[in-house]
Amino acid sequence: MSHEVVVIEGDGIGREVIPAAVEVLEALPVDFEFVEADAGDATEEATGEALPAETYDLAADADATLFGAAGETAADVILPLRDAVDSFVNVRPAKAYPGVDALRPETDVVFLRENTEGVYSGHEDRLSEDLSTLTRVVTSSASRELAEFACEFVEDGRGPAGDPDEGFTVAHKANVMRETDGRFREEVLAVAEERGVDADEELMDAFATKLPLDPGQYGVIVCPNLAGDVLSDLAAGLVGGLGLLPSANVGHDNALFEPVHGTAPDIAGEGIANPTAAVLSAAMLLEYLGHVDEGRRVRDAVEGVLSDGPRTGDLGGDATTEAVTAAIVDRL
Amino acid sequence: MSHEVVVIEGDGIGREVIPAAVEVLEALPVDFEFVEADAGDATEEATGEALPAETYDLAADADATLFGAAGETAADVILPLRDAVDSFVNVRPAKAYPGVDALRPETDVVFLRENTEGVYSGHEDRLSEDLSTLTRVVTSSASRELAEFACEFVEDGRGPAGDPDEGFTVAHKANVMRETDGRFREEVLAVAEERGVDADEELMDAFATKLPLDPGQYGVIVCPNLAGDVLSDLAAGLVGGLGLLPSANVGHDNALFEPVHGTAPDIAGEGIANPTAAVLSAAMLLEYLGHVDEGRRVRDAVEGVLSDGPRTGDLGGDATTEAVTAAIVDRL
Ligand SMILES: CC(C)[C@H](C(=O)O)[C@@H](O)C(=O)O
Ligand SMILES: CC(C)[C@H](C(=O)O)[C@@H](O)C(=O)O
Repeated sequence: MSHEVVVIEGDGIGREVIPAAVEVLEALPVDFEFVEADAGDATEEATGEALPAETYDLAADADATLFGAAGETAADVILPLRDAVDSFVNVRPAKAYPGVDALRPETDVVFLRENTEGVYSGHEDRLSEDLSTLTRVVTSSASRELAEFACEFVEDGRGPAGDPDEGFTVAHKANVMRETDGRFREEVLAVAEERGVDADEELMDAFATKLPLDPGQYGVIVCPNLAGDVLSDLAAGLVGGLGLLPSANVGHDNALFEPVHGTAPDIAGEGIANPTAAVLSAAMLLEYLGHVDEGRRVRDAVEGVLSDGPRTGDLGGDATTEAVTAAIVDRL
Repeated sequence: MSHEVVVIEGDGIGREVIPAAVEVLEALPVDFEFVEADAGDATEEATGEALPAETYDLAADADATLFGAAGETAADVILPLRDAVDSFVNVRPAKAYPGVDALRPETDVVFLRENTEGVYSGHEDRLSEDLSTLTRVVTSSASRELAEFACEFVEDGRGPAGDPDEGFTVAHKANVMRETDGRFREEVLAVAEERGVDADEELMDAFATKLPLDPGQYGVIVCPNLAGDVLSDLAAGLVGGLGLLPSANVGHDNALFEPVHGTAPDIAGEGIANPTAAVLSAAMLLEYLGHVDEGRRVRDAVEGVLSDGPRTGDLGGDATTEAVTAAIVDRL
């Protein structure tokens, strides 16, 4: 059975790292049909739309999508694309790799970020010359769905420790947002309790202090949308930056995979971007489509290259994107 | 002229570190009238109210308030107290001290956090069995008032570098919260431009990655309410924890000073809490009341003790709160 995968390179280094990830996927004994689609700043310049309806529809109908990055138009591209694949959870692992300079080498966490509501609900109003409001939305249904996913994730040993007993931590600000984050917190903890999964909690501000002080105490972290955005980016800072971080926007029968980094305009077009985050996103795509062994092989190859293979400039080397990609393919 | 200062110890180690801060203030040639008032968990247990109206009124009418910490009732105490002193900005310095173990010893930043609105507006609704909302509020007036304060702060050389040319950074999420954070961002940058103060900007998620990677590039950071809460707590993790961080809630002709740490129930009552954050909060109170030299003396004494004086357990020593406080007073 062939998998239809929509490939959206986007802008900047998206045009370099996504082809690298596709090259890795093509080197595996898995049958893909890749469909190219456009989105981003360049697309907006050319067509007037950052995300053409055709791209939205392709992503919505595919088995999965691989997306690179978009520049100024990032929010206009990625938020609707998350909607196109009906994604309710954004899976964001942040792991320090041996041999890579990291502020906290013991960091190995996975954020499960609510992907549809919170302050991302899109309801904003200019009520007067002086006053604007945003309606932050939290539903029990979305909170419970995220929590069910988190429980399965932990039960299946997909957390960093691989041990279902590790449970998860829910990070929130329910002491201030009592009704909305209160609902989120309550539903997430209730689902964990129902399913017999261990869950503890942290206020998100306290979590932001504790994560840099002692990341080893955390594994899987479940958060509302913006909290997950900010706290996972904080974790990126602890493992050496965004260059290594993949992510998965998982929906009910569709998903979109993207490196967490942006377009890196300073190095775009030079062929020296680090393909690791995009290739690890491809590994998540493989696992999502059921090719768990192949996903593992890609991960192992990436880790091997990170520990003693060629490196791009962000990791202190001078290898090209192409050379690093070839080294990964070589180790598959 | 005597200054009337309301002293609210609150719960936990608040009862130990606030008396220490008062002891330091009393050792200076400044005339204070201290008025004790109650708030917190113990007060709620005794009276049914975490923040009695009398305490609110005392804080509202005083020249300044020194507050310790509250336990479970923290939000019920501190949010109304910020309102009592009519505070529009929360000033939160995070600085690593020589001799104190810090993840990023080069950290020296000051957060200027909007202190009245954002998701702290207090407007939440349970709209259905499934759905709750929170109305996030951003006004031009509050954004501009914060920005005016930030410009003065920078112009007066009160930023970490002491150099007005350093300007400030505004951190926000205007790519998603386009109307509300868009307004915030626009007004803050407009005020900076009007006053000729240098200002640049960061998305708050990108800031959370970059601060741990390279804190040295930042000085004064201006943020919406929740962003300031989380990002300043992140900075606390980089300088070695909350034990050293003071804060000032500044209003129009009143202010409240509090250590950023909480009640530390694990060590409360043992006389071993670190008084540094409370004493540094007292130094901010001195400066606020116009006693800039005395504030400087307290800071210098604290820094001296941190670098070669007795230390409490959190800093690897075994000195008592009393011994550290005596050492600070000794160096004044
Ligand atoms: C580009 C932006 C809308 C997006 C988000 O806030 O979700 C990005 O920061 C991310 O985390 O993928
Ligand atoms: C206790 C809580 C309401 C408070 C806040 O969120 O402002 C605290 O975290 C702080 O930063 O002072």
